[in-house]
Amino acid sequence: MSTLPMINDVDADETAAELFADIREARQTEYVNHFWRTLANDPSLATETWKRLQEVMGPGTLDPLVKELIYMAVSIANGCEYCIHSHTASARKRGMTAEMYGEFLSVVSMASQTNALANSMQVPLDECFLNSDEG
Amino acid sequence: MSTLPMINDVDADETAAELFADIREARQTEYVNHFWRTLANDPSLATETWKRLQEVMGPGTLDPLVKELIYMAVSIANGCEYCIHSHTASARKRGMTAEMYGEFLSVVSMASQTNALANSMQVPLDECFLNSDEG
Amino acid sequence: MSTLPMINDVDADETAAELFADIREARQTEYVNHFWRTLANDPSLATETWKRLQEVMGPGTLDPLVKELIYMAVSIANGCEYCIHSHTASARKRGMTAEMYGEFLSVVSMASQTNALANSMQVPLDECFLNSDEG
Amino acid sequence: MSTLPMINDVDADETAAELFADIREARQTEYVNHFWRTLANDPSLATETWKRLQEVMGPGTLDPLVKELIYMAVSIANGCEYCIHSHTASARKRGMTAEMYGEFLSVVSMASQTNALANSMQVPLDECFLNSDEG
Amino acid sequence: MSTLPMINDVDADETAAELFADIREARQTEYVNHFWRTLANDPSLATETWKRLQEVMGPGTLDPLVKELIYMAVSIANGCEYCIHSHTASARKRGMTAEMYGEFLSVVSMASQTNALANSMQVPLDECFLNSDEG
Amino acid sequence: MSTLPMINDVDADETAAELFADIREARQTEYVNHFWRTLANDPSLATETWKRLQEVMGPGTLDPLVKELIYMAVSIANGCEYCIHSHTASARKRGMTAEMYGEFLSVVSMASQTNALANSMQVPLDECFLNSDEG
Repeated sequence: MSTLPMINDVDADETAAELFADIREARQTEYVNHFWRTLANDPSLATETWKRLQEVMGPGTLDPLVKELIYMAVSIANGCEYCIHSHTASARKRGMTAEMYGEFLSVVSMASQTNALANSMQVPLDECFLNSDEG
Repeated sequence: MSTLPMINDVDADETAAELFADIREARQTEYVNHFWRTLANDPSLATETWKRLQEVMGPGTLDPLVKELIYMAVSIANGCEYCIHSHTASARKRGMTAEMYGEFLSVVSMASQTNALANSMQVPLDECFLNSDEG
Repeated sequence: MSTLPMINDVDADETAAELFADIREARQTEYVNHFWRTLANDPSLATETWKRLQEVMGPGTLDPLVKELIYMAVSIANGCEYCIHSHTASARKRGMTAEMYGEFLSVVSMASQTNALANSMQVPLDECFLNSDEG
Repeated sequence: MSTLPMINDVDADETAAELFADIREARQTEYVNHFWRTLANDPSLATETWKRLQEVMGPGTLDPLVKELIYMAVSIANGCEYCIHSHTASARKRGMTAEMYGEFLSVVSMASQTNALANSMQVPLDECFLNSDEG
Repeated sequence: MSTLPMINDVDADETAAELFADIREARQTEYVNHFWRTLANDPSLATETWKRLQEVMGPGTLDPLVKELIYMAVSIANGCEYCIHSHTASARKRGMTAEMYGEFLSVVSMASQTNALANSMQVPLDECFLNSDEG
Repeated sequence: MSTLPMINDVDADETAAELFADIREARQTEYVNHFWRTLANDPSLATETWKRLQEVMGPGTLDPLVKELIYMAVSIANGCEYCIHSHTASARKRGMTAEMYGEFLSVVSMASQTNALANSMQVPLDECFLNSDEG
């Protein structure tokens, strides 16, 4: 159902093979998921995307689980079915409990609601937000 | 520039006046921001939205700052200028540092990129995400 | 602030001049709003769009005010500032009261909220909706 | 295919059981649809959402069918497959005819088209819309 | 899975039958795809949409393949699964190679990323873009 | 009006100063636009984004003007005001004529319309698109 075939291990060129090896190493599993097998039709785009993803989602000032929650929120608002599933699964692996997920859903639905209201009424910005932003 | 006038303290009916008092009490400031003054044209919708917002954004399993980051992510993907400004300001009040904001921007831009790629190629879901979801 | 200059009456070619005359006639006002003056840089695209708009928004099985409310809802979800303002103004001209607008905002915010929830959880369709659809 | 299992009648806790009873009572059918069975993983979020939905979609100044059309329009622009199906089915139950649906589709497609045009050209607002808004 | 049944050749009224004949003639194939069979529930909306599509996508200053790439880009950002598939297939028929598709995906993912960044930070417009626009 | 101050030449750290020099060199102008001055609050994110942009938008199988049109299409559908203006200006610098822009607007508005229709009716995919995709 994809617009491109998936690249399996046999058909992978050198760049794609290295990418698949990196993914297996980083995740400690033999399984390479569909996104990477499909994007690997353009091995250099796939490799650059993977490298950047590793940098961005790794440990930093924000906790890896918090990063997954932000990723999920963007994916939901953008309506990306694949990313919603893959990052909800990742968040669970990183410790998202049922309670956290319930609170996450409440925040996402609240934000969607007030986004719609602010857009509907075209509420003008308050000076103070701008001051606070620059502070 | 709004589709509705803002309700000032003099014009507020009893429900709106109570809402404004609640907001001042909760935030410990005299200032009532434009969103609430505009939504107060429908005092019961404004009051319900405020009450629900207080419940959702208050302390829970997720940290209030994490909730603000999720709120910002949804607002950005939905393109809501007002909410982006107001919740970026709130996140700063709750402790978002420049480093955190930089990491947040990296995650949001990474997610937007892979959302576009997964949507472009219509990548089919992997069985394992579904298994992990149900587990 | 537009990507194109507005076409004024003097600069209008024959097609654009006819379009402006049609708009004035249909609306019984001398004023031609910015959307049409900007789109008139491509007079044939502007004329086709105007003709189609007249057909679509005119009387039918659905009331013209109901059509404006649907138009507003789409424009809000698409985040189109210009269309939100112009169609909120049109809805008011066609009789939208403050009460109706309040109910409209409640429905739009409710829909945005459950859209986000259904997308978040990727709820599978019920058979019965499909049966009802085909019935 | 959901990120959460559906709660059946046997597994429902007291809050969820009450919710399912309310839904059955309100709709006069034994069937509880997937959205509520999935959201019921967080029984209090599900119950609040249901109560609010009943208030918002009930009789008011706007006809219940008109509210369903607004709901459909938002769901389409937000790309929510589940909500498009469930609210198209609801609109039919509330009397949407084939003619009405055809007109609805024409308005939705017209709005999407002019939203894209106004966004493309970044058309600046006319003063008169603002005056009309405040009037 | 559609909200409307597909109109087959036997059930087509005169307008729909003519539309199907036009499509077959234009594309030199007996096959009429699902979009048109579904939209043909409203034969006049279907016919107008088809005629407009033929005008818009035909030869002009922009190459037909370039038009398909623009169509794909809009469909991806709008998350329209059907249009992504049908226009990716059309682009291939019009000569899109694997290299072109790889570059297309890189541009789409780059744009999505900077769109998210510009929206996140609410970057103010530079005067020079406006001057260049009017030039 | 941004959520971050713009970094001017004096405040730029070494990484940001190098980025600004690169931009000036590549574009043969002293002017550094707001997007880069704002993103330069996180010099490494800004530098990586700039480098990737140069690679993606440079000459390839697709013409640089075609790439700008794709970029514009995505930015319009995502409602990013800044990117719409900056990439419409870039497209003009790369040779977009008034006729091309008119055709571009027609394609974007046509795609937006059929995206809305396909989403509204939830049209199921045709087998043949999938075969063509894999071929």
